[in-house]
Amino acid sequence: MNFEKEQNDRIEYIEQILKEYLPEEAGLQKYVIEAMNYSVLGGGKRIRPLLMLETFCLFQKKISKVIEPFMAAIEMIHTYSLVHDDLPAMDNDEYRRGRKTTHVVYGEAMGILAGDGLLNYAYEVACKAFDMGENPVMIADAVKVLARKPGIYGMIGGQVVDVLANGSPLDKERLDFIYKLKTSALIECSMLIGAILGGATKEELEIIEQIASDVGLAFQIQDDILDVTSTLEVLGKPIGSDEKNSKTTYVTLEGLEKSKEDVQMISDRALKNLNMLKLNYKENLFLEELIRRLVSREK
Amino acid sequence: MNFEKEQNDRIEYIEQILKEYLPEEAGLQKYVIEAMNYSVLGGGKRIRPLLMLETFCLFQKKISKVIEPFMAAIEMIHTYSLVHDDLPAMDNDEYRRGRKTTHVVYGEAMGILAGDGLLNYAYEVACKAFDMGENPVMIADAVKVLARKPGIYGMIGGQVVDVLANGSPLDKERLDFIYKLKTSALIECSMLIGAILGGATKEELEIIEQIASDVGLAFQIQDDILDVTSTLEVLGKPIGSDEKNSKTTYVTLEGLEKSKEDVQMISDRALKNLNMLKLNYKENLFLEELIRRLVSREK
Repeated sequence: MNFEKEQNDRIEYIEQILKEYLPEEAGLQKYVIEAMNYSVLGGGKRIRPLLMLETFCLFQKKISKVIEPFMAAIEMIHTYSLVHDDLPAMDNDEYRRGRKTTHVVYGEAMGILAGDGLLNYAYEVACKAFDMGENPVMIADAVKVLARKPGIYGMIGGQVVDVLANGSPLDKERLDFIYKLKTSALIECSMLIGAILGGATKEELEIIEQIASDVGLAFQIQDDILDVTSTLEVLGKPIGSDEKNSKTTYVTLEGLEKSKEDVQMISDRALKNLNMLKLNYKENLFLEELIRRLVSREK
Repeated sequence: MNFEKEQNDRIEYIEQILKEYLPEEAGLQKYVIEAMNYSVLGGGKRIRPLLMLETFCLFQKKISKVIEPFMAAIEMIHTYSLVHDDLPAMDNDEYRRGRKTTHVVYGEAMGILAGDGLLNYAYEVACKAFDMGENPVMIADAVKVLARKPGIYGMIGGQVVDVLANGSPLDKERLDFIYKLKTSALIECSMLIGAILGGATKEELEIIEQIASDVGLAFQIQDDILDVTSTLEVLGKPIGSDEKNSKTTYVTLEGLEKSKEDVQMISDRALKNLNMLKLNYKENLFLEELIRRLVSREK
């Protein structure tokens, strides 16, 4: 398998879906739509729609149209969270992925409204799945997950605890809460929706949720490790920023060696769970390799 | 009919529903939940859930539980829009209904996140309707409306054009667009969902949407008229604020007399349409009186 080529093919497909589902830049409210599209089409690894798609493929051989609005919706939700995170009252970031952030280009009021617009439009787009001739109960189950995981008991909940800490030291309970919700919740959302639309059973959904939770956690711990062990050249951004900002991370709480062991243990567990599912369904080597690379990446 | 008593009874019921569906103030993310609940439970006339409920009652004799999550959801969406409107980057309001605004009490970051939380939670709450044993296609139709009307082709769209005008004079096209979307969209959303859950036909839904659009428009024009004709004592807020802020209103564009005539014409049309529906269903005198009072109110 040429992983890079397979990944690029899929990302190209996802970019197409995004363009198809993003709103047309027309009407008197055109300006906010431009701000929304600017935010979504600013690059990014499209990890969430990719995980959704590949989880779906664990259960189904052929891609169904019904997953497409959800792939667009999850990326809109991820993007809205970045747009609002970047606002002056939050992280006050002026650049993201080498481009000016949305509120810097379009103004702070439009930053707020473009974020609101993306969150709201994600549900509008996901509801298009009800008109594709599939079982409405299955679609409803997917919409429920799309509403729960990004919310106050998911991503927003993690974000709140992170914002409230405001740079002061965190205990293990709070750090786990933030990692579980801020990072893992949208990964769980993506993989669960892929599995629901693929027709997974209740037991399979539980395994998928556990895999997703582990992938999110391992990804986040690896991020903390790289901030200590990598170099500016490899990472493409300054290392040591966590220490400089006196930020509590998995590494500051558990030490570097234990953190490395835990990443290994958590990602092994995720891959073992994935292999349990593979007993029933066609192998998805791509998903396996994607997870391996997400958690053991060097940048 | 003792209108005030009937209205108070219904508002009491709506307040109960809101309390039932608002999230419990617990968990590490408790602070944002407090901010959400503070915002929603700050009073208000509950016009949107009330119109939803009464429109439902046009079509059904007995209130069904399935409408309750939607009544809570529409009020959460209305409230999130106020919380974000009040932010420093938007209207920068420190008081609303005599209480400090959410961001003043909880900080600007929590104001943003509480608004996001309310918008997102509205969909989470509405999805509970899928678990009440009703037809999932009907619930899906209601969720679709709940996603479309508050969004960029509805309320947010109107808000964007209003914010972009930034106090400069508006032409008729823009003013109509703002009134139609910023005010009418959530009224349409409320009445349409009430009608959908009540089992209205496609033709009836079109009439309901027209009534709701007229009610929103007449309500808004009446607001402009009162700013010119009322007194501080009656209105409970300073009059003449539109002129002071050089704000374009229906009255500045069309004149006071024409505005009064138009309110009359539009509300007559709404009531005539409502009476067309009454041919098929039990009278809803309360809804008729509610609409009459909304558009011809003196404060």
